[in-house]
Amino acid sequence: MIIIMERNATKVNIQKVLDLLTDNGFKVRCTEGEIHTVIDAIGDKNTVSPGRIAALEGVKEIKVIREPYRLASRDGQDEDTVISFPNGVKIGGNNKPVVMAGPCSVEEDFEGLLKVAVAAKEAGCQFLRGGAFKPRTSPYDFQGFGEKALRYLKKASEETGLLTVSEVMDASDLDMMCDYVDVLQIGARNVQNFKLLHAVGRCNKPVILKRGLASTIREFLLAAEHILYHGNKNVILCERGIRSFDSAFTRNVMDIASIPVIKKYSHLPIIIDPSHGTGQRYLIEPLAKAGLVVGADGIMIEVHHDPENALSDGKQSLPIPMFKEVMERLNRFSNRLHYEKQYLSADV
Amino acid sequence: MIIIMERNATKVNIQKVLDLLTDNGFKVRCTEGEIHTVIDAIGDKNTVSPGRIAALEGVKEIKVIREPYRLASRDGQDEDTVISFPNGVKIGGNNKPVVMAGPCSVEEDFEGLLKVAVAAKEAGCQFLRGGAFKPRTSPYDFQGFGEKALRYLKKASEETGLLTVSEVMDASDLDMMCDYVDVLQIGARNVQNFKLLHAVGRCNKPVILKRGLASTIREFLLAAEHILYHGNKNVILCERGIRSFDSAFTRNVMDIASIPVIKKYSHLPIIIDPSHGTGQRYLIEPLAKAGLVVGADGIMIEVHHDPENALSDGKQSLPIPMFKEVMERLNRFSNRLHYEKQYLSADV
Amino acid sequence: MIIIMERNATKVNIQKVLDLLTDNGFKVRCTEGEIHTVIDAIGDKNTVSPGRIAALEGVKEIKVIREPYRLASRDGQDEDTVISFPNGVKIGGNNKPVVMAGPCSVEEDFEGLLKVAVAAKEAGCQFLRGGAFKPRTSPYDFQGFGEKALRYLKKASEETGLLTVSEVMDASDLDMMCDYVDVLQIGARNVQNFKLLHAVGRCNKPVILKRGLASTIREFLLAAEHILYHGNKNVILCERGIRSFDSAFTRNVMDIASIPVIKKYSHLPIIIDPSHGTGQRYLIEPLAKAGLVVGADGIMIEVHHDPENALSDGKQSLPIPMFKEVMERLNRFSNRLHYEKQYLSADV
Amino acid sequence: MIIIMERNATKVNIQKVLDLLTDNGFKVRCTEGEIHTVIDAIGDKNTVSPGRIAALEGVKEIKVIREPYRLASRDGQDEDTVISFPNGVKIGGNNKPVVMAGPCSVEEDFEGLLKVAVAAKEAGCQFLRGGAFKPRTSPYDFQGFGEKALRYLKKASEETGLLTVSEVMDASDLDMMCDYVDVLQIGARNVQNFKLLHAVGRCNKPVILKRGLASTIREFLLAAEHILYHGNKNVILCERGIRSFDSAFTRNVMDIASIPVIKKYSHLPIIIDPSHGTGQRYLIEPLAKAGLVVGADGIMIEVHHDPENALSDGKQSLPIPMFKEVMERLNRFSNRLHYEKQYLSADV
Repeated sequence: MIIIMERNATKVNIQKVLDLLTDNGFKVRCTEGEIHTVIDAIGDKNTVSPGRIAALEGVKEIKVIREPYRLASRDGQDEDTVISFPNGVKIGGNNKPVVMAGPCSVEEDFEGLLKVAVAAKEAGCQFLRGGAFKPRTSPYDFQGFGEKALRYLKKASEETGLLTVSEVMDASDLDMMCDYVDVLQIGARNVQNFKLLHAVGRCNKPVILKRGLASTIREFLLAAEHILYHGNKNVILCERGIRSFDSAFTRNVMDIASIPVIKKYSHLPIIIDPSHGTGQRYLIEPLAKAGLVVGADGIMIEVHHDPENALSDGKQSLPIPMFKEVMERLNRFSNRLHYEKQYLSADV
Repeated sequence: MIIIMERNATKVNIQKVLDLLTDNGFKVRCTEGEIHTVIDAIGDKNTVSPGRIAALEGVKEIKVIREPYRLASRDGQDEDTVISFPNGVKIGGNNKPVVMAGPCSVEEDFEGLLKVAVAAKEAGCQFLRGGAFKPRTSPYDFQGFGEKALRYLKKASEETGLLTVSEVMDASDLDMMCDYVDVLQIGARNVQNFKLLHAVGRCNKPVILKRGLASTIREFLLAAEHILYHGNKNVILCERGIRSFDSAFTRNVMDIASIPVIKKYSHLPIIIDPSHGTGQRYLIEPLAKAGLVVGADGIMIEVHHDPENALSDGKQSLPIPMFKEVMERLNRFSNRLHYEKQYLSADV
Repeated sequence: MIIIMERNATKVNIQKVLDLLTDNGFKVRCTEGEIHTVIDAIGDKNTVSPGRIAALEGVKEIKVIREPYRLASRDGQDEDTVISFPNGVKIGGNNKPVVMAGPCSVEEDFEGLLKVAVAAKEAGCQFLRGGAFKPRTSPYDFQGFGEKALRYLKKASEETGLLTVSEVMDASDLDMMCDYVDVLQIGARNVQNFKLLHAVGRCNKPVILKRGLASTIREFLLAAEHILYHGNKNVILCERGIRSFDSAFTRNVMDIASIPVIKKYSHLPIIIDPSHGTGQRYLIEPLAKAGLVVGADGIMIEVHHDPENALSDGKQSLPIPMFKEVMERLNRFSNRLHYEKQYLSADV
Repeated sequence: MIIIMERNATKVNIQKVLDLLTDNGFKVRCTEGEIHTVIDAIGDKNTVSPGRIAALEGVKEIKVIREPYRLASRDGQDEDTVISFPNGVKIGGNNKPVVMAGPCSVEEDFEGLLKVAVAAKEAGCQFLRGGAFKPRTSPYDFQGFGEKALRYLKKASEETGLLTVSEVMDASDLDMMCDYVDVLQIGARNVQNFKLLHAVGRCNKPVILKRGLASTIREFLLAAEHILYHGNKNVILCERGIRSFDSAFTRNVMDIASIPVIKKYSHLPIIIDPSHGTGQRYLIEPLAKAGLVVGADGIMIEVHHDPENALSDGKQSLPIPMFKEVMERLNRFSNRLHYEKQYLSADV
């Protein structure tokens, strides 16, 4: 790491920094600039954390050189992580992008869910998504049907062969959820719920980790690191929009560039969720295509058999007929991109 | 609520909105403007939620008139909530602002903690704060000493008479924590961990709820609403800075204006945390005063007996001698503000 | 507009609002809700502006129904604006997306500029871009070669047949600039330099207006409105990234969704600038494609004959050989999208 | 500066960086870390700018050690800049904070303006502020009365002895404005209108520079640097709120902490504008006090003789009677702070 001292740091201040570092086995080099003294230190940050140096008198700023997510970084593993399911579906690497579709929440009406699942299967999707536990900003909004919803999801999966995804909100639900679903999802609001990250980290189910509304890319990868660190290597990142100063036309701003950025620095697969990212039905198709063209490993889309009566997120859910049309175009688009990537070695 | 239709909404689109509303007992009134049709609807949003209307074809935007936090709002309770502790300490209303001081994390060295506690007591603080479970962005950072830390905290409290505050990160720790601490804290990263909000809502301990890095004031009050709704009326809000585009000089931007805003619309007490809000030792005193002058009901300050060796947040912790000086000036400042407010009925 | 009164607004407060509105010819309707009184008012906002109502005692909030950009909006003109150049190039509507390429700044070396121009022409670009006046955050950075740069630009244009684009920073340079360039550019930092917007509004050259770092979509369209209002109908919007809380990996966050949003609400053409939007060479191609796939009418790309010695923005400039490869793929991609849009009437 | 190379940078990449630096007289030192190679370079950034290094292949990131605002920084001038006016008023250093009051825009009614000016004078203010040229987001809003407004302002100043402040929007108005006003103001939207900064930099009038909605502290100081660099040393900074993700209750978020931060790193005086910072009448007094308590050198307040009929910003303007009460309390508060700072050498 590099330590920049305040302009008015004293010799004693500087010496104290040097001593702490050398006492802990760091190699240090100190350069007096015109204004600031700068100290380079190479060593094991587990013995002296940057925060501890920062607390010393006269330290202005610390610049850490190595990205702090070691397991998520390509520094440690260069090849893409590929997540494989028993039915042969694969996410990541050179595999064709997957599609996860389904209602925001699983509701009372199983037939409605099944209609969506059948449409998803016919459209070539690999996953059925649906919420059983819903994080809702207001306590007066629908909070999900819980285990009953998971039973429905599993039943719809058995009838269609789709894999299932559902959000886990609490570590205590984890064992139960693992009985029903193929992929666990951590929602944007829980991206720094570290207890939950650790719990899914000790699980053997793949996990979709959604980027938080205010997560930097670094924090997002560090949240993934918490899961990897606790043993679960099957983490799928999900870009779903970040908070900006403008929410008049879209709920969030989709950070499309984060996908190639993350692909450059991490080996983990990353998918996009244009439904939550925009909150607008008419933006799902263009943003899904934008995600695919920059290299996303999959798309998550909200579909409802009757959006006008949906208990949550109706505004951003596609009705089934529109979903079919969108999927037809997305499949064509995705196939062509995939074909070129595979056989023409064109840069995508 | 007010529903604004798209420019090209059809008569059928409009009729569908009107029907849904009237079928559910809303009184509606429809106005055709030059460009947009606007529908006013008065009724019970629990029967038709705004989100459900939003999902109808041709709806551009919905404007909800009444703030959605009913229990947190002065609409339902005009007088300030005052939280009273058995030892006579009170937070909120016309009571003198309280001070909560202590280390970021409780560490191995009980004597160090006790030194801080004694200094806090002598300086007139009412609460000893200290983390037992630490939410850390990186899995490689110190995560807290858990129950042992709570035992230390309680012991320091018994020796000094200070009340105690510590963060709860998981609902499963709640019963255990209630045995040790007087006030539970929900951290900024858990502000929308709804399972946890519901759990502390069913508790009978006062709760400090920290504003999330990206919480709007509305979302912050709705997070409080989740706790209130589940039965716990003793919620203390805490402004601790929000995320902005600039973190070169301060960790966060303290939204000082949020304090008088929240005081206007909610009856809940609100305190400020300039240590986390700024991340810089030299900014704690001025920002604490700024918080007091705009009406905060308390201050939370990080103090450490040896910040240069603190396991977390040393940079923003005051060492004990500096803390004593700061407290002397803060007490003088706070006393004078309180005196004027009480006896001169001057506006603060 | 809709006026929402404070909970504790008095009858006198309410009457005053009603009187002001009716005195100015508004039709009003007043609804007393459980908590808030709401007033609907239809009339000419030029006689009583929302801001004037907002200043009345007891007014909580005003919701304006009609978007305030009348000339930029599809409300007034449904068909796409198409901008045509004497040489037959067209921007907007169903025309094939254009490409504008060139160095950030035009530098001393004319041969270098010509190399870029020739490469751009050969790659099928229609415009040569290059800065003569450079807005620079620091006064110590290179500020552009001024008129000399414009002469070079014109000369390169004459030799290649490319149209030219350059940024105008001050109204007093306008006449001079119009002698040299085909399209004027207003930079992101001048998006609310209203004097400059008015001046280019009185010009008969097409104008590229870049979105400000912190412009909402509404403000962006209102900035365009200033130009349109002063008489210049040939405005080309440009999405170039907005400021967010994360600038570790990209300079800005490209708001890709803003393109289909703006296309829905405005008839003006919109292009994207992935060079400034990301600040990273490796992100230009993927983000350019993402822009095209969501409907952008053009792309602006920084190219330099020797980026390692560029006087500005070298990091985000493509060297000529890489530019050629990128353009080959972009052309293929763009042609296919255009073909489908034109002949297969597929939604893009 | 410190150059961090990409993980996969080649020896050739590294050598090229070293060569460019040494060829330009930099002293360099290269350290191979486990993952990244890091190069320290000491030398004159005017010969090789960081941007030029950044453009080299394999460079990941550059960390500049010395803050780039040399004239604005305490590195070059440790003592506070104090700006003195012929009538003895002083801004900055240990002088008592000044107050600038007046309407957002100067309007047709001179008597109204005079009423405000007299009230301001009686309340102990030193400056009368009022807009002649108004930057307005919409072209349909009132744009100011121009030179006529300046004549009114001067006349009101002559009758009361107040100094005057008004915003300059265009360099071409500068000479004319200098005939009328004592202090020029650069608005938030023009904070990076460099042509205008350069023009006021060549002026001999003091300049108030408002922080932009999305200016980092570094960019804000660099904007000041543009003025200082062109020769005008009398720059007064003004914190007026920044854009955040929440504008439901306040127009902007006032970054109160920026005041002590800027005081630490720059010698320039800084004032606050709680009227624009919050956009709410009821927040002006508390935020003004918050600004004073953290060390602001002055306050700017909008006052109108008839806010309900103001042509701009009525919502955030104080009516005269309320202004008098607020000023009485602000004066008492400010006097006490100043007294303590001067005579008790208490830290404020």
